Amino acid sequence: MKNSVNRELPDALMSNLNYEPFKTTDFGNPEIQRVAPKVHATAKENKVIDSLEDVVKQTVKDGMTISFHHHFREGDYVFNKVMRIIIDAGYQNLTLAPSSLTNVMNDIVVEAIEKGVVTNITSSGMRGSLGDAVSHGALKNPVIFRSHGNRARAIESGEIKIDVAFLGVPNADEMGNANGMDGETAFGSLGYALMDAQYADKVVLITDNLKEYPNTPASIKQTQVDYVVKVDAVGNADKIGSGATRFTKDPKELKIAKTVNQVITHSKYFKDGFSFQTGSGGAALAVTRFLRQSMIDNQIKASFALGGITKPTIDLLEEGLVDRVMDVQDFDKGAASSMHLNKNQQEIDASWYADPANKGAMVDKLDVVILSALEIDTKFNVNVMSGSDGVIRGAIGGHQDAAKAKLTIISAPLVRGRIATVVPDVTTVVTPGDSIDVLVTEVGIAINPKRQDLVEALSNIPGVPVYTIEQMQEMAEKIVGKPKPLEFTDRTVAMIEYRDGSLIDVVKEVKD
Amino acid sequence: MKNSVNRELPDALMSNLNYEPFKTTDFGNPEIQRVAPKVHATAKENKVIDSLEDVVKQTVKDGMTISFHHHFREGDYVFNKVMRIIIDAGYQNLTLAPSSLTNVMNDIVVEAIEKGVVTNITSSGMRGSLGDAVSHGALKNPVIFRSHGNRARAIESGEIKIDVAFLGVPNADEMGNANGMDGETAFGSLGYALMDAQYADKVVLITDNLKEYPNTPASIKQTQVDYVVKVDAVGNADKIGSGATRFTKDPKELKIAKTVNQVITHSKYFKDGFSFQTGSGGAALAVTRFLRQSMIDNQIKASFALGGITKPTIDLLEEGLVDRVMDVQDFDKGAASSMHLNKNQQEIDASWYADPANKGAMVDKLDVVILSALEIDTKFNVNVMSGSDGVIRGAIGGHQDAAKAKLTIISAPLVRGRIATVVPDVTTVVTPGDSIDVLVTEVGIAINPKRQDLVEALSNIPGVPVYTIEQMQEMAEKIVGKPKPLEFTDRTVAMIEYRDGSLIDVVKEVKD
Repeated sequence: MKNSVNRELPDALMSNLNYEPFKTTDFGNPEIQRVAPKVHATAKENKVIDSLEDVVKQTVKDGMTISFHHHFREGDYVFNKVMRIIIDAGYQNLTLAPSSLTNVMNDIVVEAIEKGVVTNITSSGMRGSLGDAVSHGALKNPVIFRSHGNRARAIESGEIKIDVAFLGVPNADEMGNANGMDGETAFGSLGYALMDAQYADKVVLITDNLKEYPNTPASIKQTQVDYVVKVDAVGNADKIGSGATRFTKDPKELKIAKTVNQVITHSKYFKDGFSFQTGSGGAALAVTRFLRQSMIDNQIKASFALGGITKPTIDLLEEGLVDRVMDVQDFDKGAASSMHLNKNQQEIDASWYADPANKGAMVDKLDVVILSALEIDTKFNVNVMSGSDGVIRGAIGGHQDAAKAKLTIISAPLVRGRIATVVPDVTTVVTPGDSIDVLVTEVGIAINPKRQDLVEALSNIPGVPVYTIEQMQEMAEKIVGKPKPLEFTDRTVAMIEYRDGSLIDVVKEVKD
Repeated sequence: MKNSVNRELPDALMSNLNYEPFKTTDFGNPEIQRVAPKVHATAKENKVIDSLEDVVKQTVKDGMTISFHHHFREGDYVFNKVMRIIIDAGYQNLTLAPSSLTNVMNDIVVEAIEKGVVTNITSSGMRGSLGDAVSHGALKNPVIFRSHGNRARAIESGEIKIDVAFLGVPNADEMGNANGMDGETAFGSLGYALMDAQYADKVVLITDNLKEYPNTPASIKQTQVDYVVKVDAVGNADKIGSGATRFTKDPKELKIAKTVNQVITHSKYFKDGFSFQTGSGGAALAVTRFLRQSMIDNQIKASFALGGITKPTIDLLEEGLVDRVMDVQDFDKGAASSMHLNKNQQEIDASWYADPANKGAMVDKLDVVILSALEIDTKFNVNVMSGSDGVIRGAIGGHQDAAKAKLTIISAPLVRGRIATVVPDVTTVVTPGDSIDVLVTEVGIAINPKRQDLVEALSNIPGVPVYTIEQMQEMAEKIVGKPKPLEFTDRTVAMIEYRDGSLIDVVKEVKD
């Protein structure tokens, strides 16, 4: 069967796993019966347990679904602590359902897969040795990749039923009142983990920082928590901040960032009260810098900035250029540490951020988003999941979700080294071209032809040539040549869900 | 059938309505499957509708359960607006499930009952013309009275299934982000209404104050809201504050308040880090004043103050005598208006406050509570529901819930006018004597004999005579004489649930 982005889907697997093919980016207005956890009532006055082993043994059973969050990113100690115990205890057939998997988690997941401890995974993404192992068929069943909004949707609808959530926090009291914004390993918003705290049958908090009762603000509440485990350390504070925290100095990236800003400021969306999501990384920070100047020059203020938040965005809040920061995660210490100081930096959960199946997510109100791409094809379909070698090395993150914005800009170089970014067909479709409006590269921009309004608005920006996406693809091919087609086996190693839970693409096992 | 507080219960009705008799104050550790709402997904960017009529017609159907909160108390305009439309539209057989009913709602509920619009009610309480009508058999089916914690429990378990919640708020944006703490009719914590927002299938916000999007802090979130209705006025700001805001000058009340404070300070619970709930009313404010002085004199600070909050409690927070105020509702403007200024005044929902069926409520950690009584009997059972004439004129509120405290003090005069407060048997058992520790009256105190530790601790307080509860009852009877027994028909007009959902007593139709 082929879906509406022309991807061949594995019929048998789809029918086994009850999948519909991806049809449209429009979620419509279905009525959805939500699910709810089983709650073990208690009136006890202290939930602190010193032994993580004991808690694991009391809560986890073979075949269960366990979850984690990735707010500690590369500084996470909690995932490895828990998984070590689980592997050593010899559990089998677990489903791993973290909000995402960071590199620091790779090796132990590979080990868990090899030992049959983990046989199913759903995640936003994976990279490195884990992506490699999965792409080579290590995992028993296909990974299911879901965007942040889709994970929220799937948890609410019961498609992901979390039996036990192991949630690391930089502070908690003896009853489980906790937040992400205070303490040595503060990471700011607990946005993704709030779903697990609300929907898991059993919630285990793991902290190195027991606070006086009652600990407030309580993003996670005692009413949701079964156990509080005290450990020596939950994370490495220096590695929580992800990626670049400085503006890029790469001339190509600066050129792209400047053009992105020109696209924004020449669009009809750039007006008082507009909203934006810029994301992380050096290029995103550069966009934020250019945008800031344009806002000052044009006396325009934003109603909100959304998404993963960085310090430069907090600076805009403090400068009064942005009214509210709607914060599902913080990418650096500056953003994380400001949350408890600035009441206009509102913590939001993944559902509020991006869930298509609720009564209105922030992304539905988003004007402008800048997103990245590993590949973008002539149908504007975007791949942020698999590399040019076909191996999994990415994450959906909020890509599909934020692409709901009124102006969705893909910011990417035409080529990376000897590899084209703009291609005839992406290796893996993650975000459908239907939701992409403009591609910005170092040579100019390409506008999705279905957006004739943008073609008109953006065709005469001084110094910004407009090409068709096909022209862009040809330019890229001229530079790097035509790559040899990738070879895959027939085996499906990963399912890529669209944010509505339908199947937009699959990843096949690579043939080496 | 009789339950464990020796109340005769109507067997047929119990079996029809699936009731267990009340057995014990210990909730135990059951595992409870929670329920969840049906959510109508939308991506629309504005939920504002001008016509409340239209929203009612789009959402309400005969036989449904509709809910309201009572945070506007006697200043509420929303309840009457909505019920007027509902009555005029000729709906039938609705169940009314507000967090409580205030006097300003009485007449229209009586009208709705008379017209068959409302045939079932569950509430914390009722008074005045409505209590009178129900006590005289006006309502088709028995009212179910539930404490605040029990209402939360019943909503979570599906015993109360709210089809449409009509929630008045002093501010909201076009998507439904709202809080109780800003605006002309701010009432502070949205504690009770948060249950409705989370569990109702349809949530209708009604506001007179549309704010810029996104409106934060968002106690109620856009993800929960279906409609936002703009009206001229949601309430009368001057009538939101309930009852006394000044210390009593009544010598008897002052005497009782002073004795209450002595009981607290002579107990083992009065130590650094203790917690308390004092409630509202002039006598409660006096207790807070005495307690403040004792805390200063003894250099003792409280970890938290709980419950319905008054300005004098906020003063303790600001003075540093209390670390946190855990706030499910605010009784006066001073408490309401400080919430958005003081980050240690934490808004909590009714479940977190008092629900026995979750993973730990604030009341489970509460050291000292002062509660009132219309009657208390020689088994220490307390009635806060029916008057000496047998007519319903009260509310459970958090009475049963907060009585979970380690030291539960009933503060009440021995007699009120010609009516005894301490009686052989209360007219209606609301809170079982098992959870009451000390009765404080103007003549002295009575200690529940099951608390021998308190008998020892409190028997030698200078100027505070200790009596048995039987002696107290005899003293009261000596003053006012033996009242004529009340006469009731066989018809049950109200069921009094204990906080675990079991039946602790019923109210019968009065015979005039």
